[in-house]
Order: sequence, then C-alpha cells, then structure tokens
Amino acid sequence: METNVIEVNAVLDIMWIMIAGILVFFMQSGFTLVESGFTRSKNVINIVMKNFVDLAVGSLAFWFIGYTLMYGESIGSFIGTPSLFYNVREDMHNLFFQTVFCATAATIVSGAVAERTKFTTYVIFSLIMTTLIYPISGHWVWQGDGWLTKLGFIDFAGSTVVHSVGGWAALVGAILVGPRIGKYTEGKSNAIPGHNMMFGALGVFILWLGWFGFNAGSELAISGESSFNAAGIIITTNLAAAAGAVTALALTWIRYGKPEVSMTLNGALAGLVGITAGCAAVSPGGAAIIGVLSGLTVVFSIEFIDKTLKIDDPVGAISVHGVCGALGTLLVGVFATDGGLLYGGGFGQLGVQAIGVVGIGAWALITSFIVLFILKKTLGLRVTKEEEIEGLDMHEHDGAAYPDFTIDR
Amino acid sequence: METNVIEVNAVLDIMWIMIAGILVFFMQSGFTLVESGFTRSKNVINIVMKNFVDLAVGSLAFWFIGYTLMYGESIGSFIGTPSLFYNVREDMHNLFFQTVFCATAATIVSGAVAERTKFTTYVIFSLIMTTLIYPISGHWVWQGDGWLTKLGFIDFAGSTVVHSVGGWAALVGAILVGPRIGKYTEGKSNAIPGHNMMFGALGVFILWLGWFGFNAGSELAISGESSFNAAGIIITTNLAAAAGAVTALALTWIRYGKPEVSMTLNGALAGLVGITAGCAAVSPGGAAIIGVLSGLTVVFSIEFIDKTLKIDDPVGAISVHGVCGALGTLLVGVFATDGGLLYGGGFGQLGVQAIGVVGIGAWALITSFIVLFILKKTLGLRVTKEEEIEGLDMHEHDGAAYPDFTIDR
Amino acid sequence: METNVIEVNAVLDIMWIMIAGILVFFMQSGFTLVESGFTRSKNVINIVMKNFVDLAVGSLAFWFIGYTLMYGESIGSFIGTPSLFYNVREDMHNLFFQTVFCATAATIVSGAVAERTKFTTYVIFSLIMTTLIYPISGHWVWQGDGWLTKLGFIDFAGSTVVHSVGGWAALVGAILVGPRIGKYTEGKSNAIPGHNMMFGALGVFILWLGWFGFNAGSELAISGESSFNAAGIIITTNLAAAAGAVTALALTWIRYGKPEVSMTLNGALAGLVGITAGCAAVSPGGAAIIGVLSGLTVVFSIEFIDKTLKIDDPVGAISVHGVCGALGTLLVGVFATDGGLLYGGGFGQLGVQAIGVVGIGAWALITSFIVLFILKKTLGLRVTKEEEIEGLDMHEHDGAAYPDFTIDR
Repeated sequence: METNVIEVNAVLDIMWIMIAGILVFFMQSGFTLVESGFTRSKNVINIVMKNFVDLAVGSLAFWFIGYTLMYGESIGSFIGTPSLFYNVREDMHNLFFQTVFCATAATIVSGAVAERTKFTTYVIFSLIMTTLIYPISGHWVWQGDGWLTKLGFIDFAGSTVVHSVGGWAALVGAILVGPRIGKYTEGKSNAIPGHNMMFGALGVFILWLGWFGFNAGSELAISGESSFNAAGIIITTNLAAAAGAVTALALTWIRYGKPEVSMTLNGALAGLVGITAGCAAVSPGGAAIIGVLSGLTVVFSIEFIDKTLKIDDPVGAISVHGVCGALGTLLVGVFATDGGLLYGGGFGQLGVQAIGVVGIGAWALITSFIVLFILKKTLGLRVTKEEEIEGLDMHEHDGAAYPDFTIDR
Repeated sequence: METNVIEVNAVLDIMWIMIAGILVFFMQSGFTLVESGFTRSKNVINIVMKNFVDLAVGSLAFWFIGYTLMYGESIGSFIGTPSLFYNVREDMHNLFFQTVFCATAATIVSGAVAERTKFTTYVIFSLIMTTLIYPISGHWVWQGDGWLTKLGFIDFAGSTVVHSVGGWAALVGAILVGPRIGKYTEGKSNAIPGHNMMFGALGVFILWLGWFGFNAGSELAISGESSFNAAGIIITTNLAAAAGAVTALALTWIRYGKPEVSMTLNGALAGLVGITAGCAAVSPGGAAIIGVLSGLTVVFSIEFIDKTLKIDDPVGAISVHGVCGALGTLLVGVFATDGGLLYGGGFGQLGVQAIGVVGIGAWALITSFIVLFILKKTLGLRVTKEEEIEGLDMHEHDGAAYPDFTIDR
Repeated sequence: METNVIEVNAVLDIMWIMIAGILVFFMQSGFTLVESGFTRSKNVINIVMKNFVDLAVGSLAFWFIGYTLMYGESIGSFIGTPSLFYNVREDMHNLFFQTVFCATAATIVSGAVAERTKFTTYVIFSLIMTTLIYPISGHWVWQGDGWLTKLGFIDFAGSTVVHSVGGWAALVGAILVGPRIGKYTEGKSNAIPGHNMMFGALGVFILWLGWFGFNAGSELAISGESSFNAAGIIITTNLAAAAGAVTALALTWIRYGKPEVSMTLNGALAGLVGITAGCAAVSPGGAAIIGVLSGLTVVFSIEFIDKTLKIDDPVGAISVHGVCGALGTLLVGVFATDGGLLYGGGFGQLGVQAIGVVGIGAWALITSFIVLFILKKTLGLRVTKEEEIEGLDMHEHDGAAYPDFTIDR
C-alpha cells in the first residue's frame, strides 16, 4: 500500500511537470507574436522563422547534448558530464520541461536583433546558445552541485538562469549588429512603431499564461506540500505581472501624458521576469512590490538604452529580460520571507544574489560576445542595406507575410 | 495511510483548480480578440488597454479586498467580512480561480461601450466593479451563507453571478454612453462591421476552450466522484456551445439568406453562457436544448436591442451575457434532472431561479447605474466627437495599432 | 483502502484525458489559423465558418451516433452497435476526447478544398464524415475488436485513423472540386501565396501544442507506468516535429536557395503527423528519424501533387495528413522498438501496417468519393466563377473579414 501511494505522488509530479512544460512551450508563440507585433510587417516571416528555429533546433540540440551538459553529474561544479541523445525513460518529463526553458532563453535574443540580422548567423548563434551558453550557466544553479547552488544562490525559476542570460546575449547582439537604418538620425532616436498591437497584446497574454507553468512548474512537484507552494507561486506570479502592468501604465501616463500600450505590455512582462527568481520565496505583498519596481525599472531602462546609450532594441528585450531579470534576482535578497533583508536576514542573501547576477551576467556577456564577434568577422551579422530597407522577408525568405494588403512602409 | 490518501485527493483538487484557473485566465485574451475583431481598427489599442486593465487592476483589487468581501464570513447573508491583502497559504488556488472569474465579469462591459468611452472613466468603473459590485452579489450565491444560497438558488458556474452581472452593467453602460457616431441615422440602424473576423473567431475558440475550465473548474474538486461530474460538465458545456452555434448559423441562414459569421460565433458564446448555470445539473440532452434556446435567443435579442431599442452594443455583449445568462439561469428550473420542471420538480426551482435572476439583475443595474451616472456627471463617459471619429487609439493612447497598413475608414 | 487508491488512479486518468482533450480541442483553432493564413483574405470568413461547423456539427453528430458507431460493441469487427444520444456518466471524458479527434479528421478536408467550395455542400460532407466515414474505420483500429486490431495493426494516436482518413478525403475533394481559377495556366502551376504568415505560424504553434494532448492523451491513462509512457510520448512528439521542421527548412534552403516559411511550418506538421502512429512505440532517436523522413517527404509530396499531378491543395493537407500519415504508420513497422524491422522484428509488423494503411486508405477514398460525387451531381461542389473571383466571404456569407484595410487582390 505504501508503495502505491508513493506511486501516486510520482504520477502527480510527472503530470504537473508535463502540463507546466506544455504551458512553457506555448510561450514560444507568445514571443513570436510580441516580437512580430512590435516590429514592421516586412520582417514577420523572418521573425517567425527565427522563433521556430529556436524551438526546433533547441529541442534537438538540448536532447542531443544540452540537457546532460546542464544536468549531468557535475564536473568541478562548473559543467555536467555530457552524454549524447538523452534517453532515460523515467526522466523524459524533466527533459521536456528543461527543453522548453532552453528554447525560451534562445528566443529572447531574437527580439533585440530583429529586422536587420542575417538568418544564417542567427541560426548558428541559436544552436550555440542552446547547446553551450545556456546549459553551462544553468548547471551552476539548477543541477544541485553547481558553484552558485553551493553559495546559496536563489533563482527559483530563472530570472537570471533564463531571462538575464537571454537578455545579456541580446545586449551583445544589439550592440554588435548595430541600430536599424533610420533609428538614430542627427543624434535623435526615432520611434519605429510595431505593425500589429493586437499581436503584441495576444503575445503578452500568452506569455503571462505560460509563465504560470514556467514558475509553478519549477517547483518540479505538486504532491503533498508542493501543491500549496505551486498555488502560492501562481498568485505571486499573477500579482507581480499585474503590478508591473499597472505601474508602467501609470508611469507612462504621467511621463508622456497618455497611457502607452507597448510600455504597459512590457510592464507586465517586466513584472513576470522580476518575480521569476523569487516566486516561491516571497509573500504576495512582496510579489506586488517586486512587480511595481520591475514596472518602474523597465520604463526607465528602455528609455535609457534607447535614448542615452542609443542601443536599438526593437522590443525592449534587454530591459525586460536582462535588467528586470537581474533586478528580480537581487530583490530575492530583500523580500525573501526566509533570509531577505526586510525579514531580518541581513545582507548575506543579497550578497549571494549579487554574486550570481554578476557571475552569470559575465558568462553570458563574454560567451555571446566571443561567438557573435567571430560570426561578425566571418559570416557577418547583418543583411545589406537594400535587404534591410526592402525587408528581410523578401530577401532572406523570398516571401511576404501579408501579400493581400497595401503596405505603407 | 488514511491521511496520505486524503492528502492525494487534496492535491488533485488543488491541481485541478489551478489548471482550470489558467484556462479561465486565457479567456481574457479571448475577450480581447472578440472585442477588437468585432470593432474598428482605429480602436484596437484602446480595447487592448481596457482588457489588460480589467485583468491587472482586477487581480490587484480582488486580492486587496474583493475576495474577502465575496468569500469572507457572511455579514447578514449579504456581504463577506473584508480583510486586506488576502494571504492564506492553503487557499491561494481558490484566490486565483476566483480572481480570473472576477476579471471576466469586468471585461464583459468593455465590449458594449467600445469605441467611444473615455479610458480614465473605464478604469475607475473596472476598479469598482471588481472590488464591490461583483464580489457582493457573488457572495449571495457562492459563499455558502448568502441569501440566495439559502433560498436554493442554483448558479453553478455563474450564468448570473458572472455573465448577467457583466451583461447588465454593459446595458447600463451602453445606454449612458450612447450610440457611436453614425450608428443610427434617420431612425435606421447602420451596421458597423468589425475589422478582423479571424481575431473574432480565434477569440471565440479561446473562450470556448477557457469555458471548460470555467465550468468544470467550478466543481472546485476533481477527486472521487467529482471526476465524473467534471467530465459531465465538459460534455454539457461543449454540446451547448455546439448547439448554440449551429442554431444561430441556421437561423441567420433562414432569416438573412446567408449563414452569418458574427451571429454564429455569438451563438456559440450564447450557448456557453446559457449552460454555465446548469452545466452540472442537466443531462447532455438538456444541455443541447439549452444551447438551441440560447442560440435562438441571442439572434433575436441582438436584433431587438439594436434595431428596436436602438442601444448600440458593438459586440452583442448585453444579449450574449445578460440575456442568455438570465435565460440559462431560468432554464435550470426547467432542465435540472433533480428539481427541474421537466423532471417533475414543479415550479419551485424555477421560481427560485427567477428570484435570483431578478435580484442580482437589479443589483447590477442599480449599482452600475449609480457609478456610471456619477462618472458621467463628473469625469464624463465619452470622448469628444473628434476623438471618436479619428479613433481612440490616436487620442487616448497616442498610437496606431496597424501603422504599416493602408486603412480605409 | 485498496479501493481508495484505485479511485485515485481512476481520477488521475480521467483528469489526464480531459486535459488532453482540451488541448486537442485547441487544435481546431490551429487548423483555422493555418488554413486562413495560407489562403487569401477574401475567403477567411468561409474558412472560419467551415472549421466552426466541423467542431459544432461534429460535436453534436458524434454524441448523437458517431461515438457508439465507433466504440459500441463490435458487429463483425466492422462497426460498433449504435445507440443514440450517448450518456454514460462514467465515460463522458472518453466521449469528449474522441469527439475532438473526430472534429480534427473532418477539418483536414477543409484546407484542401479551400477558396472554391460551396458552404452548403461542405456542411453536408462534414456531417457524413463525422457520423459515418471516420467512426467506422476508427472502429477497426481503436474499439478493441476491430479487424485491424485483431491483425496487430498499430496506430497509437491516429496517423492513419485520423490524419490519413482526413488526407485521403481531402485528396478526393481537391480532385472533384478542381483547381482554383488561375492556379494552373498554360500548363504551369502558379503560386497563390497565403494572406497572413503570422496566422499560419500561430496556427502551427497551436497545433504542435495541441498534439501533446493528441498523442500523450491517447495513452488514455496517466496512472502508474502510464505516466512514463506519456512523458516519453511528449518527447517523441516534440523531437519528430522539430526534426520535421529543420529538415523541411534545410531542404527548401538547398532546393530554392532560401529557407521557405510555409514549407518549414508544414515540415513541423509533417513530423507531427508522422510520429502520431508510433509515438508510444519508438525511441527518441527513432522519432527524430521519422521526423526527418516526414520533413523530406512533405516537401517532395507537395511539389509532386502541385506541379506534376496538378491537384490544387492550397494548404498542403493531402501531403501533410494523407501522405505523411501513411508514411508514419508504415514506419512503425521499421522503428518500433518492439517488433520493428530495425529491431529484428522482421517484415511482419511492416506488412500489417501496410494492410492497415491500404485498407483504411481505400475506405476513405471510396466513401468520400461516393459522397462527394453524389454531392457534385446534385447540389454541386463549387461556387460560381464570379463568386470565387470576388471571394466566398462576400457571396457565401455576405461579409468581409477585413473591411478596414485596402486589399490588393
């Protein structure tokens, strides 16, 4: 009998992880919708292809080697022992869950380099991201014997492991590939509005939805007490997203005179990224505050990166995933009900969080710089001027996303 | 051992409620798609923002006070005892499930007042709806000690508690804000076709999908016999939707000479709203008949409200949610296999259902009238003529949803 | 106690089947998006209506009689004993799961005959498909006593039972209704690009997502060992889709000089259709190879059917569902770890698979030919030239999908 009950708990956990993984899988379409909605109609096919490649190549690559590099027996707390073509019957649900996480990290980069990057180059980078860059730093935190785990670093569902890694790679990509033609003229930043706000909104709804799987699935169990944990995570996740959206809405209303849609949508995403590290460690109130801080941060960060640094990030991926990912990871050290500064935990946890943010940040920046710099000097990162102006869809893929409609630009 | 088995059942129930809640969450994007698809392209951003606000503000407000006003210990069978910032670890799954229900009620109003309502005013109304109007009447039926519960009123998943409340508030809103410019000229009603029927259809598919969570999740359990109940509910829900769609399709084919898409889509929604009250109480056959009656009703009701009453409801929200919500609630008194008129139950249950429909209807009409009337006399409900003609996106949000495309109107 | 534990397992299984069914339900919107995205903007409403009818009519028809014709007590291993208005409380989850499968089979036909078929005729065909054609051949394989089951035929989730049946009916439909005006001129095949590649991509994402329910739900259980089986199926499903997409992408890159989006999307679908029969019988590696072979096959098959046979299939449904469905079913005889050719199983299983493919193929071809031929000679299959040129939306449904936008064609 005892055995049977244990079996039931195992079934519950496997089922939960599969369902959560399916929700995270859905996020891939959310990213595609946001990225295409926030950019121009002449580059939609290219964006679809990039996101599709992230998922397809990522699925194959992570199964081929990525998963064991991340979760295999630790070599020096730095990297897992690789084994090819992972096939352990009792662990397939985890392979699936981690595969869709990996695809997410890769896809973040796509938005920041949108509308001017060569498809070939992107495919190669995506492959390296999913086989090497993401699995190795992931190993540090989630395998159990990584050096950051040993330090006590907390990143429950991946504000840093997934989002910042993607965000910093996006930063490197955006700098190396350079701004879109017409984005900065006479020292001024020109807005290039996205072509379909309904796609953008639908994408954010889907991402918010998928995030319930992303965060609550990262409990990696549902049996026993885990059921309460998972439900708590769904609430912290939802409140942070809501608070991020309302904050960004209010802030743009105050600053620009009108409530702005793309910032509001990004505010929700910022709240989601921000809560990801601490979703299981903070109270609902803490989650709401993290959402507010993320919503404020994303607006100022997008402005700063765009107008001051003059780095062209069409969808705000660097701010949403990189900056708010780092912020959220640090805030665990403040708001964690067990160990956070506000709960009498001292600066210890905050310090560990900072080490993790900096360590993984450096890893992502350096490795993606090496890869993208080599690609720039060899294949080239960027399409030609003519191709960029006429659109990547026509030149990279020989098609048009909306051939029936009269297009103005 | 006994304890362990009970624990497993509790886990199953929590898991089911979370999954159902996630499905209901998804409905928010369905509402946004339907509302934007059924209206003009110049107001898409505004519609996105309103629905987003319903979700974000609703999530915060319901957590802040709404949930305990609805489910707190009953004060005189009328209202729950409020407590702020709800945070009971063992009940977070219920908070989530009820939060997404609340957001649904608020969002119904959005469609009826689309294309001419001030954003500021809408945000304030949404806040009052989610903190006060919806939770109080909800308390009457779902808290367990409410006066309608005590009478024996049956509204399993909210034909009245959610949909009619939203629908009657929508009616008040549509009357007070008045018809769109150009809708009624020389005593004639002019059709203003929606700008994207694929969005409308995708929205209805998503709503239909989410409704499985809405209705079957309202079982609030899955363990033991509840699993059969939930499966039965999924069938009654699906059959009513299918019957509603086919009926509206056939009726428009007969009446207008051609099968009409927006009525067919609304027919499915009407069937879904209609079955919501009785989804656990009627047989599959009863569900199909409720679907047919809802499908018939929605077509005539939309015509009547539009052409006879000359109330401008761009998406048919009053008919779908208000009228069919009331109808479905009443039909429980006819088709419930335990207590319905057709099963020898006499007029007793039907009478109780009528009391609930009228009581909650009066509550929703009166409270939303008070709120919206005050808003009309102070902030104003409506944008200026110029703003309406040029579109709310440009004037309320300083943007355009589709800047790449040539727009005809 | 023992009873209680068994009950928990039953609940788990019912819950899993419901969740999987909801995912399969979602596929209906995926089909609608792909079909409308891959065709012209003037026929969107018609496509929405057809897919909606497949779901609505199919839900009613399968409940009315289809389910028992398929799963009722076997009459001569050929057909189930029908009983009307199925209502067995303990089996409603299975009714739901099989209903959404049935709707899928019907909807496959829609794409192949898109943009020129009479709505009336389509509705009648869809009704016959869901009440007779699909349930009967389904009985042969899935009821337990069917003649193909007795032979040892393996089609775990329906490469043949669902997809090939739909695909061969689509072939008959496309031939009988004839090519679209302008598709073939002077012996040359002209490309008619789809009107919205983002819809196409979103549709494929949703189909891929829903397929996890389609395949892993076909385990029809999750308790005990089934949890490992289901997780394994999710991995084989995901790898085959990924391999199909990457293969089609690479092949079009090589053949056409550029990576082509619609072929890449169809490559993923081909991999999904291909793995459906063997998802529970092959290893992850076998799944990846089946994906590669399906991705290769779909590109050549689409070219062959279009350019050589000159059969106009706007979305590639015949190749994706018919050809890759047959291929995947046959490949079970090669890659099944228990009984496949590569695992020392000899030609036995492969032979049985071939019998099933041919037997069900003949059934689908002959029955749909009879039905569609009679419809052609009576009601007619095709709209008039004028209606086709101006679009089915205007003529069949008196509307336009995008009235705000300037349409070029």
